[in-house]
Amino acid sequence: MRTYRFDKVDITSGYLFGKQELNRLTTINAVYDRFCETGRIGAFDFDYVPSGDKKPPHVYWDSDVAKWIEGAAYIIKKHPTPELEEKIDALVDKIKKNQDKNGYFNIHFTVASPGERFKDRDKHELYCAGHLMEAAVAYDEATGKRDLLDCMEKYADHIARVFMEEKSAEFQTPGHEEIEIALVRMYLHTGKQKYLDMAKHFIDTRGSSETSEPNVSYNQSHIPVREQTEAVGHSVRAMYLYTGMALLAAQTGDEGLTKACKALFDDVALRKMYVTGGIGSTYVGEAFTNPYDLPNEGAYTETCAGIGLAFFANAMLALENDAKYADVIERVIYNGLLSGLSLDGTSFFYENPLEINLIEHFANERGKKRLPPTQRVECFSCSCCPPNINRFLPSIGNYLYAIDGDTLFVNQFVSSKLEDGGVRIRVTTDYPISGSIKIEASGVGKIAVRIPEWCEKYEIDRDFEIKNGYAVMNSDGGEININFDMTPHAVFANPNVIRDCSRLCVMRGPIVYCAESVDNSDNLHAYSIPCDFECKEEANAEFGLPTLEVSASCLMPTEGKLYSSRRPEKAEATLKMIPYNCFANRGRTNMIVWIHAE
Amino acid sequence: MRTYRFDKVDITSGYLFGKQELNRLTTINAVYDRFCETGRIGAFDFDYVPSGDKKPPHVYWDSDVAKWIEGAAYIIKKHPTPELEEKIDALVDKIKKNQDKNGYFNIHFTVASPGERFKDRDKHELYCAGHLMEAAVAYDEATGKRDLLDCMEKYADHIARVFMEEKSAEFQTPGHEEIEIALVRMYLHTGKQKYLDMAKHFIDTRGSSETSEPNVSYNQSHIPVREQTEAVGHSVRAMYLYTGMALLAAQTGDEGLTKACKALFDDVALRKMYVTGGIGSTYVGEAFTNPYDLPNEGAYTETCAGIGLAFFANAMLALENDAKYADVIERVIYNGLLSGLSLDGTSFFYENPLEINLIEHFANERGKKRLPPTQRVECFSCSCCPPNINRFLPSIGNYLYAIDGDTLFVNQFVSSKLEDGGVRIRVTTDYPISGSIKIEASGVGKIAVRIPEWCEKYEIDRDFEIKNGYAVMNSDGGEININFDMTPHAVFANPNVIRDCSRLCVMRGPIVYCAESVDNSDNLHAYSIPCDFECKEEANAEFGLPTLEVSASCLMPTEGKLYSSRRPEKAEATLKMIPYNCFANRGRTNMIVWIHAE
Repeated sequence: MRTYRFDKVDITSGYLFGKQELNRLTTINAVYDRFCETGRIGAFDFDYVPSGDKKPPHVYWDSDVAKWIEGAAYIIKKHPTPELEEKIDALVDKIKKNQDKNGYFNIHFTVASPGERFKDRDKHELYCAGHLMEAAVAYDEATGKRDLLDCMEKYADHIARVFMEEKSAEFQTPGHEEIEIALVRMYLHTGKQKYLDMAKHFIDTRGSSETSEPNVSYNQSHIPVREQTEAVGHSVRAMYLYTGMALLAAQTGDEGLTKACKALFDDVALRKMYVTGGIGSTYVGEAFTNPYDLPNEGAYTETCAGIGLAFFANAMLALENDAKYADVIERVIYNGLLSGLSLDGTSFFYENPLEINLIEHFANERGKKRLPPTQRVECFSCSCCPPNINRFLPSIGNYLYAIDGDTLFVNQFVSSKLEDGGVRIRVTTDYPISGSIKIEASGVGKIAVRIPEWCEKYEIDRDFEIKNGYAVMNSDGGEININFDMTPHAVFANPNVIRDCSRLCVMRGPIVYCAESVDNSDNLHAYSIPCDFECKEEANAEFGLPTLEVSASCLMPTEGKLYSSRRPEKAEATLKMIPYNCFANRGRTNMIVWIHAE
Repeated sequence: MRTYRFDKVDITSGYLFGKQELNRLTTINAVYDRFCETGRIGAFDFDYVPSGDKKPPHVYWDSDVAKWIEGAAYIIKKHPTPELEEKIDALVDKIKKNQDKNGYFNIHFTVASPGERFKDRDKHELYCAGHLMEAAVAYDEATGKRDLLDCMEKYADHIARVFMEEKSAEFQTPGHEEIEIALVRMYLHTGKQKYLDMAKHFIDTRGSSETSEPNVSYNQSHIPVREQTEAVGHSVRAMYLYTGMALLAAQTGDEGLTKACKALFDDVALRKMYVTGGIGSTYVGEAFTNPYDLPNEGAYTETCAGIGLAFFANAMLALENDAKYADVIERVIYNGLLSGLSLDGTSFFYENPLEINLIEHFANERGKKRLPPTQRVECFSCSCCPPNINRFLPSIGNYLYAIDGDTLFVNQFVSSKLEDGGVRIRVTTDYPISGSIKIEASGVGKIAVRIPEWCEKYEIDRDFEIKNGYAVMNSDGGEININFDMTPHAVFANPNVIRDCSRLCVMRGPIVYCAESVDNSDNLHAYSIPCDFECKEEANAEFGLPTLEVSASCLMPTEGKLYSSRRPEKAEATLKMIPYNCFANRGRTNMIVWIHAE
């Protein structure tokens, strides 16, 4: 199927609309302000002096600001915002002014280490270039101002010379993938074949000569990409590579790439993904580990990796009409991605743990042991996630609809309308608060509505057949009404996931729930939930989603012996649960997702 | 009660006798050999040259060798062993030769940092002195050779001058307690009051002026010891201090000290002790943490801390006739202490984790995260535990019997005989293989037999009354037959221990059992055990204790989705369990103590 880009889609109301508005009105400005304070914006003045007191601009700062520009451009595309446009124009002026005559652009490698250009693949030059290219495309699309695009075309030409013609760089492929995605977008935007050739070059070359370098699986260079079947290494790098591969395969029809992409996706979705859609189990290399190794407390699950998984899954829809890709997108967006942003839109998680036990946290915090965070913060030194949220939220329209022949696919359920040539669709819903969805469409022969993986009961008021996870029905221009049963239900992990054995997770529709000690007793491990639990729902304006009161039992605390042959007594209890993506918004608290199953 | 020292007690057969023999024939020599290889023995030549290539002798090396001497002396006391005696004599000659004229003795602070004596309380000088004093007493007791004792009396006098008269040291109490115990032993052995006064001085002074130092709870200097009610800081330091306090209180009748000791013991035994008797939950400072914070995988539970807890509990028996102290001794000895030694007697755990999950271990092993060990090793740089085992095992006789008035207490059940004046007792048993115990005693009015805390059913073939955990009966010189029901049973932790909620542990008598993946499937978390499990026992010569086959169920591994609303299926299964103290003797393997309770 061919997904529609967000510029064709108007999101009109609902939960995700609220998140878009939060980003537009708060987060985009909060991130800009932090980037000013930390010197990221000022660095574009190229006034760093090596002998001075200031630290040099970091090698990845260009990419942080580029992602912010991309996000701001998406906002402008839908909501002209002169203040954002002025900020971008000021940055673009500086980029133009400071770009090398030969097209090279990188702040660090101009002001701090000019002699080190293209010598070390781990220094993020091509990664920064890729993000600047994506920003350039987005800004041109949003405003028709092509100054930044001109700069980046010039830079792309320089990169082609250095890496493909002269081969004068000291490495062959980037240590952090991203430019592969960007080059496909440059190709799609400009129509220039050379950019697609460059994307193909970097993808084809990866895993050839680098295999003798140490730790090559970290950046997926251990074998040629077409031979890769297991998701390995740094999870953000992996997602950006796989997305680039899938985007390229969609343009070229490359079967080897398509096959590798399918295997890699399944390896992630069937063996290496948290129930929240988070990926990357360990902070060691921010990486994938072994199949089914999904510890909850130590979960790394970088926000950017979740965003990358959404990119990858959306790109896969172009290769295979299967709802499983859209299922993963839904899982990520509503859980492990939105958890990266505070409810007030100003602070962020880099990591998104699935369990917090403060008693153990504090016991170890003086030591060298790396501890997962318990609170979101406004900025971090490696601040890739905040601007990634900036660009993801305004482009959520990318994930809703797709077309293949005369079939219009509805992948995500958001009140919105799409118009593209003769194709028109309007969806009205307050999903995921309720599961009720009204679809009005015209100009298409069939409508294929994703039946969410989590949904066991649903109603559709016309005939349909299930195909690859979609309910496919004829479109007669009339109203289609669908209702997904949103009754909260228990979810169980594959028993190979050792940490989730004998536990369950509560979901309501696509929303994963968690319990926090701020609402319950401190010892969240003392609760057990019956598999057929009863549940009361209550609307919650702060969270924008209902909270749950789940029937449970709770081991009674005792004061006596530590160990006894008498089983501790249980009392009936109610466990208050909130959406996982809202955790840690009310001070430091214990949190648990996977709860003992009765 | 007054406990009998091991020299009055002959252990004649059985499980612990076997461990004593292993130590006598293998471990004592293995540790000596490793101490030669690592330079610890050679350091007594005082030939280190600061300008040379070798690293200087470590500040705590004296104590490692001192503990080895003490252990060898205990062996010699019961089994004259010329080879051991020669090794000790050679060391004593070197100590005599190299001791300062003023009595000071420490290798590091003579050959490497002579100008730094008594300047830094964290540099183990008084700790080493204490261990040398204990060795000196033990060797004099074993052989009547008092050369080492003479040296150490001279050193003690020097310490008294520096710390109590001249007050010329730059600190007031040792950063690592030990000398307090040693000084009481010096007093008991020599009858010289000055040593008891020194012990009292160091104990009384602790927590007075040091309270302004950073991190004073690490070495229990945060408040005066009589005000301490919570076990804090480095767990070995804590145990040695508390033992010293209890020993002193027994000599002086000090009620304030006694009260503090009781509170500290209860804090450990009721809130901070693993089911194995291990203590010290975190590697951060090798320390106690919060009440009920007993994580299984990260359990630090240093072998020395377990040994220290046995010392402390045994000293408490002199202050209160309560079986709870002997219960803790039994728990430690049979579980978290013996787990520190490999079955072949040559390798050691410093830490004794209660769970091993190799899949997570390997995923994190390249990182900076501190990982618990999965295998015993022959030596470690901080090799305090191996010689502590050397000295503990031959002195197990210290823990068996005690007397108060005309009542003889039987605290531990080991085939043995005791003769002291008119008091005679012989115990015949293969405990803990069976629970059958025959007692023949004469010269006492009453026998008080500890009813183990773990034991719910037992038979005694005469009238008795229960008092403070002891079955007290008249002694008529005839045979008393006791039978403790050794049927394996489930044990539950206080629900405040979050990691053990909804789990159980299997014990057979005093022995904690564990499951290893080498005997079962890799995923030990998939098993659940019913609280009323059935069980087959099988004798095992390698372990010296029976193995168990426990009725269980096991979640069936599946290949499909990671998450599903269908509960994974369970199959009937049998879980093979082995004594915890035998874990990790058959290669790298997963291990679990606390298993899901059905």
